[in-house]
Amino acid sequence: MRIGIVQSSPVFGAIERNIADGLDLMSSQSADVWVLPELFASGYQFKGAEEARALAEPIPAGPTSQALIEYASRTKSYIVAGLPELDEDAVYNASVLVGPEGYIARYRKVHLFYEEKLNFSPGNLPFGVVDIGIAKIGMMICFDHLFPESARSLALQGADIICHPANLVLPDLAQRTMAIRALENGVFTATANRIGTEHRGTEALTYTGQSQIIAPDGDVLCRLSKDSIGVHVLEIDVMRARKKSITKHNDKFGDRRPGLYRL
Amino acid sequence: MRIGIVQSSPVFGAIERNIADGLDLMSSQSADVWVLPELFASGYQFKGAEEARALAEPIPAGPTSQALIEYASRTKSYIVAGLPELDEDAVYNASVLVGPEGYIARYRKVHLFYEEKLNFSPGNLPFGVVDIGIAKIGMMICFDHLFPESARSLALQGADIICHPANLVLPDLAQRTMAIRALENGVFTATANRIGTEHRGTEALTYTGQSQIIAPDGDVLCRLSKDSIGVHVLEIDVMRARKKSITKHNDKFGDRRPGLYRL
Repeated sequence: MRIGIVQSSPVFGAIERNIADGLDLMSSQSADVWVLPELFASGYQFKGAEEARALAEPIPAGPTSQALIEYASRTKSYIVAGLPELDEDAVYNASVLVGPEGYIARYRKVHLFYEEKLNFSPGNLPFGVVDIGIAKIGMMICFDHLFPESARSLALQGADIICHPANLVLPDLAQRTMAIRALENGVFTATANRIGTEHRGTEALTYTGQSQIIAPDGDVLCRLSKDSIGVHVLEIDVMRARKKSITKHNDKFGDRRPGLYRL
Repeated sequence: MRIGIVQSSPVFGAIERNIADGLDLMSSQSADVWVLPELFASGYQFKGAEEARALAEPIPAGPTSQALIEYASRTKSYIVAGLPELDEDAVYNASVLVGPEGYIARYRKVHLFYEEKLNFSPGNLPFGVVDIGIAKIGMMICFDHLFPESARSLALQGADIICHPANLVLPDLAQRTMAIRALENGVFTATANRIGTEHRGTEALTYTGQSQIIAPDGDVLCRLSKDSIGVHVLEIDVMRARKKSITKHNDKFGDRRPGLYRL
């Protein structure tokens, strides 16, 4: 199967334009599964909870989910993308998985970073995995990378590919942790980060690109630039993520000793 | 406090000589806590379980523990070192923690690598932490690095320093994972690896050095060479490992969401 990552440069609040830019990047190639950045249509630097709420959308009824579903249906692909979700009174930093038949699953960011805690409710759903036939998909968002439990929870439930929308500002931290997440769990990881600078009030944040796909042995299969938009599509063999043995005597999962852990 | 790592080059089966070499390296500097490699006195490539048993020792009655205790007592230091432990009928790939007053704690390798499974019983004690006053010490051995639960179990029990005796043969895998273990848990890690080649039967293994100390922010504080014996002693501020906050809103431990993990 073919997996693609999209590295876009959202403009804060310009939802229609950001969606169009994302779809435009994807349309340059074909892939079975696409991953777009965290909050790819809304932008990141909300001035507060009210602004986040104003840009949030119900999943899947909102315009971002609907545009993604339309694209997935037309191109027979699956798409993971980040967006602010409005659910009754709560606003989540969420991601959606859609496919040719429509909406499939959502994820609500479990580990919120910094002022996200002022703007979003923390995720209230456990890490989960969806079997889309060609692969089993797990989702986590950005800062979740620092907590080994995130990827572990997905991998132990059978994820072949961890789709990881991100808005990273540090130069290479998540690139290093995600390589270890792929390796320790024997899964593919696909991190879609954004680029560009958002000036909001007195703060300016520059996002650091370097979106990447990592193989189950920790190898970096592709890494995009620090400061250009782009896409990369790779053919991967999902079966590599289902073979957890690493020597005649060792297995990344079979060797676990939960009875001796203190977690 | 001062922590030191010892990178030695054991000769298989030459216990007395290997102990003397280890102590000799340590005697070049002073430290409060020393870490020596896995199986530093026995060597690694046992031809089978009987050979491992023949070189194994009770802890702390055996000659390796006793020599370490004598050195610790004389120099007012603490030492973590790897050795094959004989306990009634079982042989473990173990490590010992000794100090000025004598024996303190043992650890039995939980995740055995490759043919270690033929030579040793798997560890049967949970990951644990010991407070030696100047720091809280956790022990893990070599391949435990690949399982995030190892370091996590130690850190969640309050470890400031994870002492990590190793016999690594891959060029830089554990160096990368241990940097992430330090970072994700906000602890110091001290990996003492060996160098040299053991020719045993048809197999030869070359150990890859690069012993290292990592700071709670993931920084590499020191890394020894690939192929020379040596020691490195560093002054560290243990309090850095007790501050888990990383932003005004984030804490490496406080942000964990065990209710949403599936482990």
